[in-house]
Amino acid sequence: MTKVFDYAEVSKHNTPESCWVILYGNVYDVTDFIAHHPGGSKIILQLAGTDATEEYDPIHPPGILEENLKPEAKLGTINPDTLPSTEKSPAEESPEESGPPDLESLLNLDEIEEVATKQISRKAWAYYYSAGDDLLSKAYNNTVYRQILLRPRVFVDCTKCDTSTSFLGHKVDLPIYVSPAAMARLAHPDGEHGIAQACATYGAMQIISNNASMTPEQIVANAAPGQVFGWQLYVQTERAKSEAQLARIAKLPVIKFICLTLDAPVPGKREDDERSKNIGSNLPVRSAVQDGGSTSQTSSDPKTPAPKPSGIGQSLFAGTAADLTWKTTLPWLAKHTDLPIVLKGLQTHEDAYLASLYTPQVKGIILSNHGGRALDTAPPAVHTLLEIRKYCPEVLNRIEVWVDGGIKRGTDVVKALCLGARGVGIGRGALFGLGAGGKEGVARVLEILKAETETCMRLLGVEKVEELGMQYINTRTVERDIYDGPAGLERPTLWAKAKAKL
Amino acid sequence: MTKVFDYAEVSKHNTPESCWVILYGNVYDVTDFIAHHPGGSKIILQLAGTDATEEYDPIHPPGILEENLKPEAKLGTINPDTLPSTEKSPAEESPEESGPPDLESLLNLDEIEEVATKQISRKAWAYYYSAGDDLLSKAYNNTVYRQILLRPRVFVDCTKCDTSTSFLGHKVDLPIYVSPAAMARLAHPDGEHGIAQACATYGAMQIISNNASMTPEQIVANAAPGQVFGWQLYVQTERAKSEAQLARIAKLPVIKFICLTLDAPVPGKREDDERSKNIGSNLPVRSAVQDGGSTSQTSSDPKTPAPKPSGIGQSLFAGTAADLTWKTTLPWLAKHTDLPIVLKGLQTHEDAYLASLYTPQVKGIILSNHGGRALDTAPPAVHTLLEIRKYCPEVLNRIEVWVDGGIKRGTDVVKALCLGARGVGIGRGALFGLGAGGKEGVARVLEILKAETETCMRLLGVEKVEELGMQYINTRTVERDIYDGPAGLERPTLWAKAKAKL
Amino acid sequence: MTKVFDYAEVSKHNTPESCWVILYGNVYDVTDFIAHHPGGSKIILQLAGTDATEEYDPIHPPGILEENLKPEAKLGTINPDTLPSTEKSPAEESPEESGPPDLESLLNLDEIEEVATKQISRKAWAYYYSAGDDLLSKAYNNTVYRQILLRPRVFVDCTKCDTSTSFLGHKVDLPIYVSPAAMARLAHPDGEHGIAQACATYGAMQIISNNASMTPEQIVANAAPGQVFGWQLYVQTERAKSEAQLARIAKLPVIKFICLTLDAPVPGKREDDERSKNIGSNLPVRSAVQDGGSTSQTSSDPKTPAPKPSGIGQSLFAGTAADLTWKTTLPWLAKHTDLPIVLKGLQTHEDAYLASLYTPQVKGIILSNHGGRALDTAPPAVHTLLEIRKYCPEVLNRIEVWVDGGIKRGTDVVKALCLGARGVGIGRGALFGLGAGGKEGVARVLEILKAETETCMRLLGVEKVEELGMQYINTRTVERDIYDGPAGLERPTLWAKAKAKL
Amino acid sequence: MTKVFDYAEVSKHNTPESCWVILYGNVYDVTDFIAHHPGGSKIILQLAGTDATEEYDPIHPPGILEENLKPEAKLGTINPDTLPSTEKSPAEESPEESGPPDLESLLNLDEIEEVATKQISRKAWAYYYSAGDDLLSKAYNNTVYRQILLRPRVFVDCTKCDTSTSFLGHKVDLPIYVSPAAMARLAHPDGEHGIAQACATYGAMQIISNNASMTPEQIVANAAPGQVFGWQLYVQTERAKSEAQLARIAKLPVIKFICLTLDAPVPGKREDDERSKNIGSNLPVRSAVQDGGSTSQTSSDPKTPAPKPSGIGQSLFAGTAADLTWKTTLPWLAKHTDLPIVLKGLQTHEDAYLASLYTPQVKGIILSNHGGRALDTAPPAVHTLLEIRKYCPEVLNRIEVWVDGGIKRGTDVVKALCLGARGVGIGRGALFGLGAGGKEGVARVLEILKAETETCMRLLGVEKVEELGMQYINTRTVERDIYDGPAGLERPTLWAKAKAKL
Repeated sequence: MTKVFDYAEVSKHNTPESCWVILYGNVYDVTDFIAHHPGGSKIILQLAGTDATEEYDPIHPPGILEENLKPEAKLGTINPDTLPSTEKSPAEESPEESGPPDLESLLNLDEIEEVATKQISRKAWAYYYSAGDDLLSKAYNNTVYRQILLRPRVFVDCTKCDTSTSFLGHKVDLPIYVSPAAMARLAHPDGEHGIAQACATYGAMQIISNNASMTPEQIVANAAPGQVFGWQLYVQTERAKSEAQLARIAKLPVIKFICLTLDAPVPGKREDDERSKNIGSNLPVRSAVQDGGSTSQTSSDPKTPAPKPSGIGQSLFAGTAADLTWKTTLPWLAKHTDLPIVLKGLQTHEDAYLASLYTPQVKGIILSNHGGRALDTAPPAVHTLLEIRKYCPEVLNRIEVWVDGGIKRGTDVVKALCLGARGVGIGRGALFGLGAGGKEGVARVLEILKAETETCMRLLGVEKVEELGMQYINTRTVERDIYDGPAGLERPTLWAKAKAKL
Repeated sequence: MTKVFDYAEVSKHNTPESCWVILYGNVYDVTDFIAHHPGGSKIILQLAGTDATEEYDPIHPPGILEENLKPEAKLGTINPDTLPSTEKSPAEESPEESGPPDLESLLNLDEIEEVATKQISRKAWAYYYSAGDDLLSKAYNNTVYRQILLRPRVFVDCTKCDTSTSFLGHKVDLPIYVSPAAMARLAHPDGEHGIAQACATYGAMQIISNNASMTPEQIVANAAPGQVFGWQLYVQTERAKSEAQLARIAKLPVIKFICLTLDAPVPGKREDDERSKNIGSNLPVRSAVQDGGSTSQTSSDPKTPAPKPSGIGQSLFAGTAADLTWKTTLPWLAKHTDLPIVLKGLQTHEDAYLASLYTPQVKGIILSNHGGRALDTAPPAVHTLLEIRKYCPEVLNRIEVWVDGGIKRGTDVVKALCLGARGVGIGRGALFGLGAGGKEGVARVLEILKAETETCMRLLGVEKVEELGMQYINTRTVERDIYDGPAGLERPTLWAKAKAKL
Repeated sequence: MTKVFDYAEVSKHNTPESCWVILYGNVYDVTDFIAHHPGGSKIILQLAGTDATEEYDPIHPPGILEENLKPEAKLGTINPDTLPSTEKSPAEESPEESGPPDLESLLNLDEIEEVATKQISRKAWAYYYSAGDDLLSKAYNNTVYRQILLRPRVFVDCTKCDTSTSFLGHKVDLPIYVSPAAMARLAHPDGEHGIAQACATYGAMQIISNNASMTPEQIVANAAPGQVFGWQLYVQTERAKSEAQLARIAKLPVIKFICLTLDAPVPGKREDDERSKNIGSNLPVRSAVQDGGSTSQTSSDPKTPAPKPSGIGQSLFAGTAADLTWKTTLPWLAKHTDLPIVLKGLQTHEDAYLASLYTPQVKGIILSNHGGRALDTAPPAVHTLLEIRKYCPEVLNRIEVWVDGGIKRGTDVVKALCLGARGVGIGRGALFGLGAGGKEGVARVLEILKAETETCMRLLGVEKVEELGMQYINTRTVERDIYDGPAGLERPTLWAKAKAKL
Repeated sequence: MTKVFDYAEVSKHNTPESCWVILYGNVYDVTDFIAHHPGGSKIILQLAGTDATEEYDPIHPPGILEENLKPEAKLGTINPDTLPSTEKSPAEESPEESGPPDLESLLNLDEIEEVATKQISRKAWAYYYSAGDDLLSKAYNNTVYRQILLRPRVFVDCTKCDTSTSFLGHKVDLPIYVSPAAMARLAHPDGEHGIAQACATYGAMQIISNNASMTPEQIVANAAPGQVFGWQLYVQTERAKSEAQLARIAKLPVIKFICLTLDAPVPGKREDDERSKNIGSNLPVRSAVQDGGSTSQTSSDPKTPAPKPSGIGQSLFAGTAADLTWKTTLPWLAKHTDLPIVLKGLQTHEDAYLASLYTPQVKGIILSNHGGRALDTAPPAVHTLLEIRKYCPEVLNRIEVWVDGGIKRGTDVVKALCLGARGVGIGRGALFGLGAGGKEGVARVLEILKAETETCMRLLGVEKVEELGMQYINTRTVERDIYDGPAGLERPTLWAKAKAKL
């Protein structure tokens, strides 16, 4: 017999000593959970005694509630007639209700971002748009592609054009994949599953975020035949949690590899995101397959407490381990998964070289500065690619090298491939597509990029992606900015040392 | 006995099943033609049952109607008294009627573009102004000239200055020619023939566009003694059509060469032009000596239909062949014309070198990125010229090298000539001149460029164009950006292979 | 028996012949002092016959009045009831009284400067903000850091991060110190002592300005255990005054070194500061431990009088010696202080090398262009660091090298340390922090920089500051701009000469 | 007995057949002179039958009227009572009458230009401000100095600073001279004589323009003891006129050299100046010691008349010879003057080298692109200096090298001297000074530049201008842009040829 509560009763329990919330029509006593909430206690207390469904839903995957609360925490149900009528803040809740946008009329990714920016909440925008410090790396990620000139050849039959390729041996129709981007339901209820549906239409690969707002099972549901997924792992301080996640992923055969993220062991400083915490109510941010734990960013000096984590980006870091190393992490991972590993977030040729020594466990690397969201003035992937070509080109033969960051045009895709990348990831592009039009918006993003990529290949006189190479691009203006400091000059010694350490 | 129709009767035939249109006072049944219209069926259907003359006229050369419709398609004439009075949309149709501009007061090409932009329709502007993607190559085409410094010599008698030169042995008064620019009547009723008249006044060469809005015969009518023309060929998928065009051109002795365009085998992505399709009525775009055929830009993947062609630029590509090659196309061309060939759209030294192996059939090349309208971030002609000078300077002796793109000043003309170009083409400049003042506007453009070129030559201390050379320019800032990748470094091998293939 | 004056009586004495002023309720006859006022006579005469306390107070340290006036100059006290009620100019005096800013909401140094700019007087802003001529060096000081890319390493345990280091053997918690910035009380009554308190909280070093608006004794009062101070010396033309200052400093054991400033022997041209003299009343500017003397900037040509000193910056230079040399000044200094010397304002590798020959007296150098306030287009410290690395890297082993100028982010701090700097100074940052929120504002500045520095170190994979090095940064774009003229090329000869001169 | 005319009578003679004008109260019949007016007949005819004094006066030196008209052309005087009352166009004639500016408050040359721009007529502004085509060289002339960094040395006694130097052996107090800038009375009635008075105050040299608005005798009247002048020569097509001018100059012993201008044998395209012809009435422009003759800029092609000369700049070119050569002009000049020759307008190291072969007749050269007014994208003097240093540094020892163009700051002056220039010229700076405040305005310009130069020298640690050298500047960013084409690479051969030709 479920007990039915009146709202007046629930609303009295709004203190740390007795804290109730209403979720999906049920009434929960979360008093004991307050201290363990990865997003912090403050956020829960702000919603104590109220119906928190609207704030809770878009950022928590289903099932997470049951995993974290004891059965007796569920006290009963709410009498819906006693709920107060909600008044939406017009600025925050109903941005521009000018009807669904005409996706056909959006001709490029900038226009899609522009539409999405108007459609989604300020908080979602801040989380997606933000990047480290002064956004210099975010900007350079894109402009570095503009510095590269193309070299079209003429008198080449270009009636046919084939954008298909393979990732780790799995055939895909596009050299473009969707990067592990968190919290997709903030942009649109279609969420990560909507991205998966768009990817199915275009034969594109998707890497599922460790902080997805839907469960992996939901995301890969009804995958198309041959559809390829990867799954992103942020190793948790409590390793058992990660191990449980890996076991869960192992049951989903469409997930073909683990993408271990290394470029953000601690969160970058994303001021736009931090500022958004002051807008509207604080959202209790929670990720999909992750179970709390305390933040690793403790100040080294007890006198000076570090600024409190704030913004969605900071909250997502709760529990993430900062103590990963070549020596300890890869062997541990080998024990808990048979899937091949792709290391994400390499930014120097030294690390690319090191990674290439870990075959066959490591089958690929993603050159990434985390979309400029981690360390500002970190190098764009184009730099790291050129570094590799200069100092250790053999890496490109040993493992697959993927890149992300700054891709806005098909010409960007083609340039990355000419430089030696096997594929390119889009993160914000997919999220803004989702924000602009749900799964159809993501499909429009892929449609545009595919068409631009084909036009570029044809005008270069190239039929298949494997034909693309350095003879089709002029990288002079970028090459003169590539690192040539000690690590590059003394590499024979360094390489010898690296191998000896294995 | 011609039948006379009332407008009420015609206007009933506005469906795919029965589609009539009024053109020049005649009534046509175009039902059977809808599916064959190169500009697409949608455009015809929008005008079905109405008087389409105003939309049809400025972009279709005379005679094209008769060529495409069977005699029985002409049903009769319209009773003019039954026509509805037209109401022009003021924004689109009567831009700024502040009287004809004072051409003398326009001092440079930017000012002429500014005036033309106000005078011509939004649709015409979009077609002329647009370029690929983000317009980076279009902008760089011009700014790269600004990066080059001049080196004036003093104490040189500069009382005389002679801008005359020759193209393929034909004397001209200017090293400047009008590039094959399509659809001139969109800018002004004087159209391509107006350009020809202005060229006659200044002794300048003109290359007639394959997509001109007047017939070649109209354009070259009343040519001045010694006036020189070329004719641009876009090879059609249905080769017989191109062969017929070549035969027709052979009858016009003032046309001295065939300019085979290679830099746009598929259309670039010109978003300004694509956007303009949504402005006002859709124009049924049709080119002068071209007879339909289906677009070659078919998607390689049936699941993902390519975005539909739109904008004038896209429509013009209908029927254009994308399967041209050195091996097949030049021999085919040799069978159908005795005129010398100029290859337009080369963007790499490799292709320039290859072209130079095809003398004597190929007598010239035009370094061009199609005014930035094909592939964005393609190199400007200045880059390709410097590449040729670096890797295969002998090309400059074997064939004539012309350039286009970005020319706005006499100093730009002189710099191109110093770099080794024999002549420079202007495209948008001529069209905007036409838009600003008809044939007098084009003449003003040539007058300005001629005067600026003379002033520049005199201040350099140069009397004749053949004296211009690398000692008169400082190209340091551009030279360090020139391609030096594998194709350049391994050129001896490449050249050997290229010759072996012949 | 103190005589009590009415305001009416005092106000009659407002001429050079008889000049009285009211300060802190007392009436002084300053007629004899007018000619000796370092800030010029004009300023005193403007305030003659009035209560000058408000203008005098924020820029004169306590005790300075008594030091400069004879006892008999104090005539008596003012009857406060006779004073006119003051009317503040709203624009100048009450800038924005929107309450104290929420320091937590200010996320970076730019935002703090923005808030401070609104809080402080226009005159204070002009003095802090201003720099030489066109502010080119000031801007470049910052942007040069943005030109340097970071090279984050992955798979490095970054749970711990330690920003502590030492300056001249004294342990500090931060590699960041507060530069000798003058006139802090213009920004906030907390003044230089407030800066000291903030430094105590974060274990940061502070260098006390020679032109502080508080006495050294006040500033170091209640220093925290282990807190480290330096004291800046501008050598006075009347050396005896400097000698007296050094003797006074010797009594303060928390002051660990003398920072001899060399980069501004004559004042730069700070136009913003000069313009501010025309705003509101002229302030009689006076520094803390400095006793007048005439300006050394005399024109070499009696026909052409140099523009009069104006602005706070100019006034502070009164009495500063311009005749310092390696040969004479260091030996003189050795006679009057046992403290180690840090030379501030070196801008070439030649001078850095020379300084390194003067160990052990000279223990450190500060590469500085005086915040861009002395000579415009002088090189930023990053240039000088790279010059040293190129031409005389041994300097970095012989003496400590500190830098200042342009630091706005933790990444800037880390980059300077990677280049070989032992520490970085912030000047305007601390003053704007003071302006934004007094000592708490300075603390917020240090808190932000510490947190940003830690985030940067962790994301690079670095635990301790001594691990930072050139392998963590890419300086290609800066390196190609580094001086390589004769002084660099002929350095072996130059070095030999330099040593021979010793 | 002078005849007295009524205005009504005069105003009837307003046709080419009978053209009278009133000047300074006299009535002249200028019918016969119309065809010979260097500024063109149109301008006279616009003023025919009216009182032309206001238009005539500021641009014609005294005496020019009598030189050009026969005595009988003076018909009599006007009855002043019959003159119509004049109505000034407020926009053109009374710009901003906010009283004389406070020159002391103007802190730099930009501020002086800003004030002058408001004070002077639009026509005068257009003439001074304008430069060739897109003003690229004008802008680069200045920004190239900003690309050069200074290298201040410390621990150098800088109590003394001496800016004196010598030009061609004549002592001057400043390394700054006033360039030959035409039409000074357009800016202010003080005219070129006002400039001379300001130069006397600061011991600066002045080069008198060939197109001055006052006679040379007026300009040098009451010269200070030791004051130094040069005189600019534009050789006239009618050589006899130039010979007469040289003879006249020979009678003025304060004029120490002839500055032969070579950088503008034909006028550049100054669009701002050309546009100004349409503002207000057309001024009959006339230069000081120049007597008409026809323009040499004849079109090479009778079909295409060159655009008519317009704007003040174009008018001044009337009669200027374009046929000067090393072989013919210098020997001719030797016959007509004993004064040393300074060649102005060299822009390449080749020409600098050639000039150095013509010692002792040629004693100096001025590297100049005519203030960017001749050929746009011509190199700034800094480029030519660096070219000389690279390819033929011996030139700097053989002859004096002066530079002009772009000088706005004392740091610019110092940089030019470090590069090897003996002096720097200011043109627009002096004219805008005149416009801002007459002779006091020019003095303020010199005062500012002198003070800034001294501050810069002191902060560099330099006492005398001859100590300045390449060790004080970092020119890396400019050096990589310096010409290194064939003329540089093949210079040994070129030099040999050049000497052989002598």
